[in-house]
Amino acid sequence: MKYLLALSLAAVCTAAAAAPAETRIPDSAVRTAEQLRDRAVNDDTAYKFVEGLTTEVGPRLAAGENDAKARDWVIAKFKELGFDKVYTEPVTYPKWVRRHESGEIVSPFAQKLVLIALGHSFPTPSGGLTAEVVRFDSLDALKAADPARVKGKIVYVGFRMQRHKDGHDYGTGSSIRVGGPPLAASKGAAAFLLRSAGTDATDRMPHTGVTGFPDAKANGIPAAALSNPDADQLERVLAYGKPVVVKLDLDVGFEGDYTGANVIGEVTGKKYPDQIVDIGGHLDSWDPGTGAIDDAAGVAIAAAAAHLIKQLPQRPDRTIRVIAFANEEGGLYGGKAYAEKHAAEVAKHVLGSESDFGAAPIWILRATVKPEARAAIAQIAAVLKPIGVEYDEKGPGHGGSDLSALHQKGMAALSLDQDGTHYFDIHHTPNDTLDKIDPKEIAQNAAVYAVYAYMAAQADGDFGSKPGAFAKDKGED
Amino acid sequence: MKYLLALSLAAVCTAAAAAPAETRIPDSAVRTAEQLRDRAVNDDTAYKFVEGLTTEVGPRLAAGENDAKARDWVIAKFKELGFDKVYTEPVTYPKWVRRHESGEIVSPFAQKLVLIALGHSFPTPSGGLTAEVVRFDSLDALKAADPARVKGKIVYVGFRMQRHKDGHDYGTGSSIRVGGPPLAASKGAAAFLLRSAGTDATDRMPHTGVTGFPDAKANGIPAAALSNPDADQLERVLAYGKPVVVKLDLDVGFEGDYTGANVIGEVTGKKYPDQIVDIGGHLDSWDPGTGAIDDAAGVAIAAAAAHLIKQLPQRPDRTIRVIAFANEEGGLYGGKAYAEKHAAEVAKHVLGSESDFGAAPIWILRATVKPEARAAIAQIAAVLKPIGVEYDEKGPGHGGSDLSALHQKGMAALSLDQDGTHYFDIHHTPNDTLDKIDPKEIAQNAAVYAVYAYMAAQADGDFGSKPGAFAKDKGED
Repeated sequence: MKYLLALSLAAVCTAAAAAPAETRIPDSAVRTAEQLRDRAVNDDTAYKFVEGLTTEVGPRLAAGENDAKARDWVIAKFKELGFDKVYTEPVTYPKWVRRHESGEIVSPFAQKLVLIALGHSFPTPSGGLTAEVVRFDSLDALKAADPARVKGKIVYVGFRMQRHKDGHDYGTGSSIRVGGPPLAASKGAAAFLLRSAGTDATDRMPHTGVTGFPDAKANGIPAAALSNPDADQLERVLAYGKPVVVKLDLDVGFEGDYTGANVIGEVTGKKYPDQIVDIGGHLDSWDPGTGAIDDAAGVAIAAAAAHLIKQLPQRPDRTIRVIAFANEEGGLYGGKAYAEKHAAEVAKHVLGSESDFGAAPIWILRATVKPEARAAIAQIAAVLKPIGVEYDEKGPGHGGSDLSALHQKGMAALSLDQDGTHYFDIHHTPNDTLDKIDPKEIAQNAAVYAVYAYMAAQADGDFGSKPGAFAKDKGED
Repeated sequence: MKYLLALSLAAVCTAAAAAPAETRIPDSAVRTAEQLRDRAVNDDTAYKFVEGLTTEVGPRLAAGENDAKARDWVIAKFKELGFDKVYTEPVTYPKWVRRHESGEIVSPFAQKLVLIALGHSFPTPSGGLTAEVVRFDSLDALKAADPARVKGKIVYVGFRMQRHKDGHDYGTGSSIRVGGPPLAASKGAAAFLLRSAGTDATDRMPHTGVTGFPDAKANGIPAAALSNPDADQLERVLAYGKPVVVKLDLDVGFEGDYTGANVIGEVTGKKYPDQIVDIGGHLDSWDPGTGAIDDAAGVAIAAAAAHLIKQLPQRPDRTIRVIAFANEEGGLYGGKAYAEKHAAEVAKHVLGSESDFGAAPIWILRATVKPEARAAIAQIAAVLKPIGVEYDEKGPGHGGSDLSALHQKGMAALSLDQDGTHYFDIHHTPNDTLDKIDPKEIAQNAAVYAVYAYMAAQADGDFGSKPGAFAKDKGED
């Protein structure tokens, strides 16, 4: 509500003489943005980018062997796309490796379980760990549990995510995945299992994702996710009321630190080359799939948008910067490093938005900007409306996963959200492959990013970025 | 068309004095069948049967450790359901084991492939086999190929199955799976890969199934199926036009013979205890899933039908025999053993139908019976019509997979086909689990089997079973 109120006040104030200047996008730039949009929706640059990255490199586990390979691939691709500058900024993060994982119900009914170790899981002892399962229906129930019930057991928490356009059940699902294992460990649990944080109720595909052990020094335990049908199975067996014993064998773990990099490509601004519109995605992915929707798509959408802008007869006034972030999945390492490095110059980062929610059609725009820039955001929204994007004037917009870190330091930010109804069906599973991307849909995404980035680059005035400008907005998309 | 003609002639003939007697189902039996139907559609016996078998036993690879366990489970369940006789008949078949399998593209773009060894595949050498891939679009193209193109290579055949209600694309898909590896082997291929014979275009689930090597003495090679997205990936890599090298590591193979058994449960007929209506499914399943739709469902449907009939105030006139066949998947071993054992008494097997096409609603009835029994089949169809079953008077009906063997020896047979639109999405994959079965739908299946079996048991007259009666009907459902 605060943004709606601010907008109304701003509208009133502009009528008065002492009003601060409103940010506006010149009519000529609006016309160019419309043409850019209409060209972009038929452009296949983003789709081809994902196709190439997933085919020629594939899975991109941070600090794994494909980390450097993917970086080299993107550097070459950014150059091929004609960006004026292509460079990297180092990012250091823990190396976590997955060698092998398996699990089975030992008794009362022996049966293999389809599961996957969570990122940053600790290993089981060599040869596996066998213990009785104790079930909780929520994190709160686990919090309230007497440690005596948990000690030495495998804690299982089963929450069923449902499909929503905004994917909001992931809030609960991911909080169990991230917070459950440390909580169980603090009570002496031997290991942790969860029902996958995923909405594919009938796919035998477990969903990995990071858990809340930051590094090898944590009080860690083995932690894994069951596919939904395997969680059903475990719950059915538990319902017999007999002790249920499970064996887990997770050969995974931390192996020191690794230095990767954010890869950056720029289309240099003509008028204000040191002022930047930030767009991007993250280059790393989980390892079971090829990271097509999460998040080759995001890097591809941003790269395609900048490429389309680069092809205009005139350079944009400001610099369009495409960032392929390193190791988002392990804990926003690329985004945090970028925010630290560029915090002092945050006022120069006029507006930012990262794409990290797949490649289904973008349907809504939200913004966190200064009140005097609301009219310019409305201008952007007007150009996006014909391709299906609604404008939620109440906002807020957090800038996407990695760019939320710079937003928290004061960069004005948008959220451009894809329809996430089916995103969590395949998120972090082997099923995250190219075939999940519709070429027309990802072209719409690239069009949205091209329009926003170009119009922000041409705006007369800024969007309110300055150190600490949006300190109260603690969100992360 | 031959059956339609026969029916018309029969209709003409019945008007004449010398016409053979028509088989008819007494009105009282029709009324009882209607009541049976209406009770059955609300009965959960079949669903609970699948739930129990998949939860307490799980995957049932023929000759594997669960073969005997599943038999014991079914024997106990048949007794619990109150069948008058429960016994087994031994069946011997080759033991084939799966220990480990993996595959990857080695060059030009290194990437793991999600694949599964086909049943009866030969192993790769220990440590794996690395060779160039040569692609063919069809079995005919492979047939026509110069062996010099194939020798020492990994042959890949990529056929995309589409969804159809009658599942007919499986004819092509399974012919590649069964016939491709022996054909490739005969030309000196090192190994064989196919695009999975499955209709889930975007699931990273490979479909196993038997290939055409009958035993350890065959001229066998390693053979595996790629998931559809992995087949897409391989085809994209092949499209670069560079040599594509793949490594396969299949630790699988034959290990002598094994003797299992068909498990049989009977509701003994009151009037003609030695005359039999045959119903059933197969107890074995492929190993990656829990064999819910293929074919716990079939055994469950037949068992539930017999159980419902058993609960009637009066015993049926003829014996209802439920057969849980052994090792259908490896090549109809249970069905063939049953047909051999009972060939001499085929005239006593008045009508047979096995369920082996999942548990979606049964929508069509087809029959292969003597012309004078067509009217009785029409009576059965009339009772089934209110629950969605059409009657295709042209037939033919082959009796289902295993019972087709006794049909070929002269047993009159029905085909009661489920809607197979989505059957091949999950067939032979890890995804064949309980959640794929709708309790209402499997109850409809059990109702259909209960009605058919009961009405056949009460018929005045037979359906034409006698040695060699339907020799021209070579089909198998």
